[in-house]
Amino acid sequence: MFHDYDIIVAGAGHAGSEAAAAAANLGNKVLLITMNMNTIAQMSCNPAMGGIAKGQIVREIDAMGGYSGIVSDKSMLQFRMLNKSKGPAMWSPRTQNDRMLFALTWREMLEHTENLDFYQDMVQGILVKDDQVIGVKTNLGHEIKAKAVILTSGTFLNGIIHIGEKQFGGGRVAEKSATGITEQLVSLGFQSSRLKTGTPPRVDARSLDYTKMEIQHGDNEVTGFSYLDSVQKLDPSKQLPCHITYTNTEVHELLKTGFDRSPMYTGRIEGTGPRYCPSIEDKINRFADKNRHQLFVEPEGFKTVEIYVNGFSTSLPEDVQYKALTRVPGFEKVKMFRPGYAIEYDYFPPTQLKANLETKKIKNLFFAGQINGTTGYEEAACQGLMAGINAHLNVKEQAPLILKRNEAYIGVLIDDLINKGTDEPYRMFTSRAEYRTLLRQDNADFRLTELSYHLGLASEERYETVQRKKEAVATMIQQLKQASISPEQINPYLEKIGSTPISEKQKLAKIILRPSVSLEQMASEVPALKDIINITNKHNIQQSEIQIKYQRYIEKEQEIVDKINQMESLVIPDSFDYNKITALGTEAIQKFNKIRPRTIGQAGRISGVNPADIQILMVHMGR
Amino acid sequence: MFHDYDIIVAGAGHAGSEAAAAAANLGNKVLLITMNMNTIAQMSCNPAMGGIAKGQIVREIDAMGGYSGIVSDKSMLQFRMLNKSKGPAMWSPRTQNDRMLFALTWREMLEHTENLDFYQDMVQGILVKDDQVIGVKTNLGHEIKAKAVILTSGTFLNGIIHIGEKQFGGGRVAEKSATGITEQLVSLGFQSSRLKTGTPPRVDARSLDYTKMEIQHGDNEVTGFSYLDSVQKLDPSKQLPCHITYTNTEVHELLKTGFDRSPMYTGRIEGTGPRYCPSIEDKINRFADKNRHQLFVEPEGFKTVEIYVNGFSTSLPEDVQYKALTRVPGFEKVKMFRPGYAIEYDYFPPTQLKANLETKKIKNLFFAGQINGTTGYEEAACQGLMAGINAHLNVKEQAPLILKRNEAYIGVLIDDLINKGTDEPYRMFTSRAEYRTLLRQDNADFRLTELSYHLGLASEERYETVQRKKEAVATMIQQLKQASISPEQINPYLEKIGSTPISEKQKLAKIILRPSVSLEQMASEVPALKDIINITNKHNIQQSEIQIKYQRYIEKEQEIVDKINQMESLVIPDSFDYNKITALGTEAIQKFNKIRPRTIGQAGRISGVNPADIQILMVHMGR
Repeated sequence: MFHDYDIIVAGAGHAGSEAAAAAANLGNKVLLITMNMNTIAQMSCNPAMGGIAKGQIVREIDAMGGYSGIVSDKSMLQFRMLNKSKGPAMWSPRTQNDRMLFALTWREMLEHTENLDFYQDMVQGILVKDDQVIGVKTNLGHEIKAKAVILTSGTFLNGIIHIGEKQFGGGRVAEKSATGITEQLVSLGFQSSRLKTGTPPRVDARSLDYTKMEIQHGDNEVTGFSYLDSVQKLDPSKQLPCHITYTNTEVHELLKTGFDRSPMYTGRIEGTGPRYCPSIEDKINRFADKNRHQLFVEPEGFKTVEIYVNGFSTSLPEDVQYKALTRVPGFEKVKMFRPGYAIEYDYFPPTQLKANLETKKIKNLFFAGQINGTTGYEEAACQGLMAGINAHLNVKEQAPLILKRNEAYIGVLIDDLINKGTDEPYRMFTSRAEYRTLLRQDNADFRLTELSYHLGLASEERYETVQRKKEAVATMIQQLKQASISPEQINPYLEKIGSTPISEKQKLAKIILRPSVSLEQMASEVPALKDIINITNKHNIQQSEIQIKYQRYIEKEQEIVDKINQMESLVIPDSFDYNKITALGTEAIQKFNKIRPRTIGQAGRISGVNPADIQILMVHMGR
Repeated sequence: MFHDYDIIVAGAGHAGSEAAAAAANLGNKVLLITMNMNTIAQMSCNPAMGGIAKGQIVREIDAMGGYSGIVSDKSMLQFRMLNKSKGPAMWSPRTQNDRMLFALTWREMLEHTENLDFYQDMVQGILVKDDQVIGVKTNLGHEIKAKAVILTSGTFLNGIIHIGEKQFGGGRVAEKSATGITEQLVSLGFQSSRLKTGTPPRVDARSLDYTKMEIQHGDNEVTGFSYLDSVQKLDPSKQLPCHITYTNTEVHELLKTGFDRSPMYTGRIEGTGPRYCPSIEDKINRFADKNRHQLFVEPEGFKTVEIYVNGFSTSLPEDVQYKALTRVPGFEKVKMFRPGYAIEYDYFPPTQLKANLETKKIKNLFFAGQINGTTGYEEAACQGLMAGINAHLNVKEQAPLILKRNEAYIGVLIDDLINKGTDEPYRMFTSRAEYRTLLRQDNADFRLTELSYHLGLASEERYETVQRKKEAVATMIQQLKQASISPEQINPYLEKIGSTPISEKQKLAKIILRPSVSLEQMASEVPALKDIINITNKHNIQQSEIQIKYQRYIEKEQEIVDKINQMESLVIPDSFDYNKITALGTEAIQKFNKIRPRTIGQAGRISGVNPADIQILMVHMGR
């Protein structure tokens, strides 16, 4: 009853949905298999997208023609550009989303994607022939053929949910876990392990006293994630506020009373939890000197009174969760809708993957998302996108698309995963990126759209938009560097912002270098400007300003990139035999054999490999 | 962590949602417990509400201040008044609904209902003290106190899903079943049994050829269910069409090839299925002479391409479902999203209930919906409403509200359930109602709103609306009976519709008695009418016309009702000892002891009891 597909995607969360969309938009016949068609693209955890480093990833996904940015924009209930007071490398867009609307929008977009079929069933294993995947087998007994398979199982693989002393199987509460895949892959020689993640209680907004909390409004300007002008942004006045409150020592003491019944501390949970998104019990344990922790009180949607208590993730017994919550300012009369819980699930340490997210053992089998040990919607989504693209390239027998660390946070993420591996849920940070001055949220389109367009993924509309922007920005930068402005024209503005007036005509670009000067502000406050330069739109102004203001830093980082990239171009042949290089240390040989780096650059990033090993390697490759 | 509640409702389907809303709106502190807050008020089966006899029920729910009518109106994608060509007793409103919007609207309405709390957990048992329920215990180990408990478990109690030879536990596909309740209740002396229901495959609209099907548009006039003017109805032009196609002998032959693997015919399914909503395999078996069956091709929502194949409910192996579907005109290239399946679940034969839906064994424990052996959203919803009301009345120690068979389809339903019981899924039909001329969809507000208002459930708005309508209709009927119209005024209209012209002035009421005459039409085509009577709105015109046209039938039925109701007023004391009446047959004594009828009327409706038994009973009661 099934056609043969080019690509099958098993799982329809953030990773699976992006993978399916990308693969279908690249022209492949794609089947998206999900255990429940009603739960496509659920936000299992917090109702928000983006944030520090993650916002950059969503922008990158959008720049390449993925859907996460558009869906987030269409379902947002609040927008904020985080870190706006810092340099542009740190600016990070973030949306609060209507949880239901997010999932519905995803489903609607997927359903309107050509070449994409849906099927509700549980994938229980893959079909393999000569170390190559040729399809999947399902719970209902179907064997469905495909040239490539992408597994995006999230927290569902042998998922076990923990709340205090209670534990039960499930991929999410009241949803069944998925079985069969781990066992089969292990029998094929894969290594699997357990991770753990958690989620906080959800509560009834009607039971909260917001007067005891700080209010947090959205920005006055809603930029959103998508670079497409056709994606309408939320009217800023329609945004919902969030609130901020804090735990205190009484809350912490109450939480501690449950530690002897905690699955974390009694050893029932084996998997490692996310270091940077710790449970509240973890926080009070690890940061014992802190007498309070911030909680974000986030609305779950425009039309619901359900509230997500961000920062209070916990697997403590529910009565302890409740008692502790009642001591949080504003939560005195809290009514809980759903308790927080922890979930353990199987993942496959990602050093078993190639840089295209294909498994080393089984050709055309791809993993994306939490199955690779990551945490976060954005991390999952971008892996899905890359797996979708690379499955397509494999099917078409074309070279893989591997984003470099200087090209995208996505590149950093995958490079980290496959080389360093992870034994705890991996999330993205700006600090993981060496070249974060290059990897800004404002220029993901400049970095990635053209590349994706030539691949056949980014649309004509997207390509033309970025080309126009590139031209406009180039023109504007040229004008700003060439055109001068007179003291009469600019001094009133400079005086207003407390910047030294000029005494003779000066190049605009030079004035923009002053830290307190904003080109965007000048555009509205210096009437003469529009006679001197060709002002197009806000985005172009911002982009030109950043490129001028941070030119020195950008160029410096680019120089480093160029040097390192020479190493990246030194490809190590697949057949290279490390065992014969007696000069290498045993550990280096083991690591090289395990990772099988594609390039000298990659070899150098493997944890445990030192510069001397790389030099030895280069000498031997030279032969 | 929980307050003590007045009423706990376990389960948030149609029955549970109505129960919770009614109980809360009556001023009780209510807790609605659901296994998954994301699946409140799911339409597990077809995306439609109402239809023959069921539409009347939804109108009755609305008239009493329940939510189903409003939710259906707000989420409809198509409206049709079925049987419009027959008498008004047969008119039956029906909506096709946007499945997601229906559930979201329900949840939104529930969240905006005062006194109603929510909690996500699985109820695993009840707390009982001295044969009275005092709360529930949950999967997470909570014991939550309440004065009354309403169980509305739907298909979740020990649910088992069947597709061909495959079977797995679940309340719906990919959702866990509920456990514990049956076992506990059986240990308390309850009798439980198994029923079965089924659902058809869902398919991809993009794979269908609608040119090979009949199109079915919505009505030009969208009346909807709710009597409230404030509930906006869908713009008729915004309706989506459904389509009709047919099976054929080839389809039937293909289906038969799967019979040897069918859980129905191999004995794996023990529960009895719904006779009047049979699976397609059942239909071709039972109606072997019919060489085709109608299929309704129903859209699942405004924004989805998912299609519900109404009429093709099946638990045959999925490959058989698929192959057979491909031979249905328009389905040649069908792509299936989800297979049809059967589900078996526990129910408690409803003769174990009192007329207020309270169990006979455990005081203040109520059952509503499929747990009582019914099938259908409307049947479930109205039981939920009545259980909510009666739980409230119990808590307040007031007399129960028992709708009579001549007052509402709801009364017929519950009276049938508790007296006749059911060993197959019970659904409502107009033929089950003796007084269907009285129980019309147009007058549910006249029948029930005032009663519910005095109970404290129907709102002031609702009460005033119906009072205004009653007055307007009374006035109009009086005017129609008193005022005459002249030949010049009326004859052009009569001639147009082919009805004999009048030769002298005649009372309007007399003219309306003519079958071909329509007062509504007259209102627009006889200019003089507005000078003779006070025309208010369409609903009032229609109501007045029905009351005049069918006066004779209505009065006749009312006479019978009055006679029978005398028997209903003969209350049998709770302590009445049937065993002492030696003149009664053994069967009658057993039945009376099992059912313990409240009145002589009820005693007479018990299956297996004959008129002689009733006479003997009356003689003994007379003593």
